[in-house]
Amino acid sequence: MVFIDACLGKPTPYTPIWMMRQAGRYLPEYMEVRKEAGNFLNLCHAPKLAAEVTLQPVRRLGVDAAILFSDILVVPNEMGMELDFIKGEGPHFAHPIRTQANLDALDSDAAAKLTYVYETIKIVRQELAKDKALIGFTGSPWTLATYMIEGEGTKTYNICKREVYKNPEFVHAMLAKLTHVIKGYLERQIEAGVDAVMIFDSWAAALEEEVYFEFSWNYMVEIAEHIKAKYPKIPVMLFPKGIAGYLDNIYGNFDVFGVDWSTPMALAKEKLGDKYVLQGNMEPSRLYSREATTRGAKEIIDIMGKKGGHIFNLGHGMLPDFDPEDAKFLVDLVHNYSSR
Amino acid sequence: MVFIDACLGKPTPYTPIWMMRQAGRYLPEYMEVRKEAGNFLNLCHAPKLAAEVTLQPVRRLGVDAAILFSDILVVPNEMGMELDFIKGEGPHFAHPIRTQANLDALDSDAAAKLTYVYETIKIVRQELAKDKALIGFTGSPWTLATYMIEGEGTKTYNICKREVYKNPEFVHAMLAKLTHVIKGYLERQIEAGVDAVMIFDSWAAALEEEVYFEFSWNYMVEIAEHIKAKYPKIPVMLFPKGIAGYLDNIYGNFDVFGVDWSTPMALAKEKLGDKYVLQGNMEPSRLYSREATTRGAKEIIDIMGKKGGHIFNLGHGMLPDFDPEDAKFLVDLVHNYSSR
Repeated sequence: MVFIDACLGKPTPYTPIWMMRQAGRYLPEYMEVRKEAGNFLNLCHAPKLAAEVTLQPVRRLGVDAAILFSDILVVPNEMGMELDFIKGEGPHFAHPIRTQANLDALDSDAAAKLTYVYETIKIVRQELAKDKALIGFTGSPWTLATYMIEGEGTKTYNICKREVYKNPEFVHAMLAKLTHVIKGYLERQIEAGVDAVMIFDSWAAALEEEVYFEFSWNYMVEIAEHIKAKYPKIPVMLFPKGIAGYLDNIYGNFDVFGVDWSTPMALAKEKLGDKYVLQGNMEPSRLYSREATTRGAKEIIDIMGKKGGHIFNLGHGMLPDFDPEDAKFLVDLVHNYSSR
Repeated sequence: MVFIDACLGKPTPYTPIWMMRQAGRYLPEYMEVRKEAGNFLNLCHAPKLAAEVTLQPVRRLGVDAAILFSDILVVPNEMGMELDFIKGEGPHFAHPIRTQANLDALDSDAAAKLTYVYETIKIVRQELAKDKALIGFTGSPWTLATYMIEGEGTKTYNICKREVYKNPEFVHAMLAKLTHVIKGYLERQIEAGVDAVMIFDSWAAALEEEVYFEFSWNYMVEIAEHIKAKYPKIPVMLFPKGIAGYLDNIYGNFDVFGVDWSTPMALAKEKLGDKYVLQGNMEPSRLYSREATTRGAKEIIDIMGKKGGHIFNLGHGMLPDFDPEDAKFLVDLVHNYSSR
């Protein structure tokens, strides 16, 4: 698989591409399945439907990898937290985790309960072409903890930051428990058939540098090293969003560093290009204009070279008002321009 | 004034400190005046009340500078845009600017109409101790434009980014008009008595590097250079939030670069310390813990040295659930530790 070769730093005939949130609301065929499922969480829980939306962007766009359709919050959900998605507001936990007793009540064996995810993976891997990769994923312990402590999305993170600075032991206990669950979750995803795993640290930018490494990066690296020790051939990809200022201190045994668009690709290459394969990072909004797409994509490929070791992606997820035709234009452009 | 000396790179007997959003909801005396005003916009419009809340943190905390109490959106409001603050949701413009005709209808002479701001400044400057500085401010053209195009706060900026990539001339026309108004606004603030001016680019991080310099930084520098040419002794401070990845390309004639907490102070010093005075950058949430405050503040002062050329500040604004006593603790700590 071109995608897996690229992840492992091998030469590739062209630069592979996939797009974060490539299975999503900008696709009319996704909206149909979403409607059939009734709501977002139902869709995550229904293997056949989740498999279908996982496969849609591969068919429509010709991307080199599918990414499992699911949500990062199924993990705390199966640990025992009641989860709702409130229209226009996003995820909501009825009972946030604020005390050690709350934390103790959460199930450490939640990975065994996420059977619908493993079932989705099996269906996708059967139906997906052999030369296309399937990426499994999880939220990072820190990113999951922010939702679990706050109970919902937040602009200021002030409830969880208060805990970080005032009750660091409590937060570490939560992160350790999540780390345990996530290791088992990724192992089971791999056993079910994913070809690579990715850890999304969507709320990395909530923490200042020193605190970030202590409360987030360390745990992601622990998970990555656990997976690499057990499955050396499975690429592990990390995506810490918004930490352009912390690149001097990145460490750990993983394969791919996902670069968000606020980190210039040339800077990422300078700081990390010798150690890791880089994935990224076109600003998604360039998809509003073919001209901006062409310029942005070519510039990134010119910076990263065409000899492998780079995976093209957006620097953040697809937006609902994008046109699938524009996404297809980008995929073809990257394939053509990088294979010359 | 210690604060002004520090801004201009002169040696100071101790490191001056003020805090972004130091006049705000965490202060009970602010809440009283806010209640008297009825709503937030009324408070901005009432010079006596706005002056009172501007002065409160100087009295309570002993900070070295007051910052004018106002809102960045009074500028588009006086340009003709109907503005509301919706409880729990933030600012809202009933009629966003989406066409050239919308833009043409906005008043270029709005600076002359912001008389309540200049009146506030006159009152504060009369009542403020002579050794304390008064900082005037504005939003950057880009940050104001995001609200004017979107009509409200946004997570994705997708409406204004669509314009940036599809209709760049339209966005530039808006930014040029705002730049004109802001120049006049800052000039009048200076004539009314402010000792320094600051440009807040709160939504800097909405744009990728190349686009950021074209659509935001260039205009801020144009304003800064206009002010420095006319008032060479008035310090000009810029605060672009969240651009740790772009520091290699910072340029322009201004005095103080405001460092947010996502940019490590050592990195800012390495990249910009020879060219600009740095202001910042303690992660505000450290104020939840005296121990975290002490460690964080000392570390920043140790990095920046005690010989002047540094202004201590938070790396973002005060939060409503902070305790004023903790803020006072920080001010005393910075004064004491830096004067040794």
